[in-house]
Amino acid sequence: MKTAGTIGTGTQLCAVIGNPIAHSLSPAIHNAAYENLGLDFVYLAFRVEDVQSALAGMRAFENFRGMSVTIPHKIEIMKYLDQIAETDLAIGSINTVINEKGKLFGLGTDGPGALKALTDADADIDGQNVLLLGSGGAARAIAFTLAQKTRLNQLAILDIDEVMLKGLVSDLKAGTKARIMPGLLGHDTLVVAMKTADIIIHCTPVGMHPNEDVSLIPPTLYRHEQVVLDIVYTPLETKLLFEAREHGLKVISGINMFINQAVLQFEHFTGVEAPVERMRQVVMEYLK
Amino acid sequence: MKTAGTIGTGTQLCAVIGNPIAHSLSPAIHNAAYENLGLDFVYLAFRVEDVQSALAGMRAFENFRGMSVTIPHKIEIMKYLDQIAETDLAIGSINTVINEKGKLFGLGTDGPGALKALTDADADIDGQNVLLLGSGGAARAIAFTLAQKTRLNQLAILDIDEVMLKGLVSDLKAGTKARIMPGLLGHDTLVVAMKTADIIIHCTPVGMHPNEDVSLIPPTLYRHEQVVLDIVYTPLETKLLFEAREHGLKVISGINMFINQAVLQFEHFTGVEAPVERMRQVVMEYLK
Repeated sequence: MKTAGTIGTGTQLCAVIGNPIAHSLSPAIHNAAYENLGLDFVYLAFRVEDVQSALAGMRAFENFRGMSVTIPHKIEIMKYLDQIAETDLAIGSINTVINEKGKLFGLGTDGPGALKALTDADADIDGQNVLLLGSGGAARAIAFTLAQKTRLNQLAILDIDEVMLKGLVSDLKAGTKARIMPGLLGHDTLVVAMKTADIIIHCTPVGMHPNEDVSLIPPTLYRHEQVVLDIVYTPLETKLLFEAREHGLKVISGINMFINQAVLQFEHFTGVEAPVERMRQVVMEYLK
Repeated sequence: MKTAGTIGTGTQLCAVIGNPIAHSLSPAIHNAAYENLGLDFVYLAFRVEDVQSALAGMRAFENFRGMSVTIPHKIEIMKYLDQIAETDLAIGSINTVINEKGKLFGLGTDGPGALKALTDADADIDGQNVLLLGSGGAARAIAFTLAQKTRLNQLAILDIDEVMLKGLVSDLKAGTKARIMPGLLGHDTLVVAMKTADIIIHCTPVGMHPNEDVSLIPPTLYRHEQVVLDIVYTPLETKLLFEAREHGLKVISGINMFINQAVLQFEHFTGVEAPVERMRQVVMEYLK
């Protein structure tokens, strides 16, 4: 248990910045993990409007080690960093900043968090057909991560927003070698895409609390050999996941992606393997 | 006891900045006080070289409430603040920054800490003759505070550094109405000044660890009705204080001034009366 007496001149600071920030789970998750491993870290939350000054401060405070970045700063912050991982440059947003003696490195853990959620569930991606529903920020992160870090066979992407979809598809074609199959989301295109999909990843807000009674996928389209990841995690089991599970599919809640992005941040900040089960426990307690 | 679980999105940050900072007692003192009162604050230590960027960060982090400032930043930091208390402008250094929604206010608690050490010991200053030995940073803070906040009769100041002494004396004459009696420190001037002094405040490093076996004042000059404050607090009882006490004087250790400057910072940061005895206990444990 971290006591005030254990906070000293060597304690390192990590923090989440965003606006608003009052409902962030990050302080609870990260502090519980520090406590679990007895690490000399403290994790705070800062409401921030002026991102550039926030980063100037991070550079100046030698032991301000890591920052989690949330809405609305995930895109704007990129222009004030010293270096950004190549995949994240292509994605166009980051959620993590690491302070290496005044040099600030940016990266994203959403895409890797989703990939880890799939591999933790023994979903084999190599040679498989992946269907992504949505083309917003989370879809971009997941699409680039899968396209660059796995050997998937093809990546189908359906969305109702044609402009956003075209942007993602042209970026993917420029930045990766993956075979991309884009389409405007509708009943017919979904029927076709579901026929060849091995792994389905739902990246739209449909089904999120308080609109829990909707799903983009008619349950008749499910085949029991498919795997479904829904990045929505409120509720923990969306209507989409419930119906998929009823049809015998392997289902993965978005909570795993959420926990994994924090786990990966923790490991970047501390250099220590994260106490995943303790972090999961904290998240579950809060979501109850 | 502050546990990681109690640190959340509402937790406020205070910190000491300086260079070096590894041996600061401030995190221990302030965190123990927060814990004692159950306040949702955390106090860290940051080694800082770039003061301007550090303040930019403080402005940007809404709940970065307070900063203690130590060597070498106490003078330079003044130019980056939004407002500075009038007395501290005259003193020319500050040790405290308060963040009021992005506006940064600077002030000093060394002078008020010394004054509180005197009044806590029931040393009546009004109408009395004060003798200050030294004219450096601490002497400046104490001289201006006593000249502006008390009704002392006269303020004698002796130092070996004529340039520094003249600077302080001319600033005091410009900024206060106190009767100032300056002199170059030597045996003869000391004998004369000691004859009229009611309160003696020693503000030079003489007698500080590891050079503990020296005192500026020949013990034959003491009169038992005098009060002596030595701002040196390592050792807790300097040779000067020991000899003064042997001669029946009321003696005040610099540790009280040190604790008071932290107490006053705590109260500025939190708006709550400080748990003085708990803070004293922490300091004493560390100095043992």
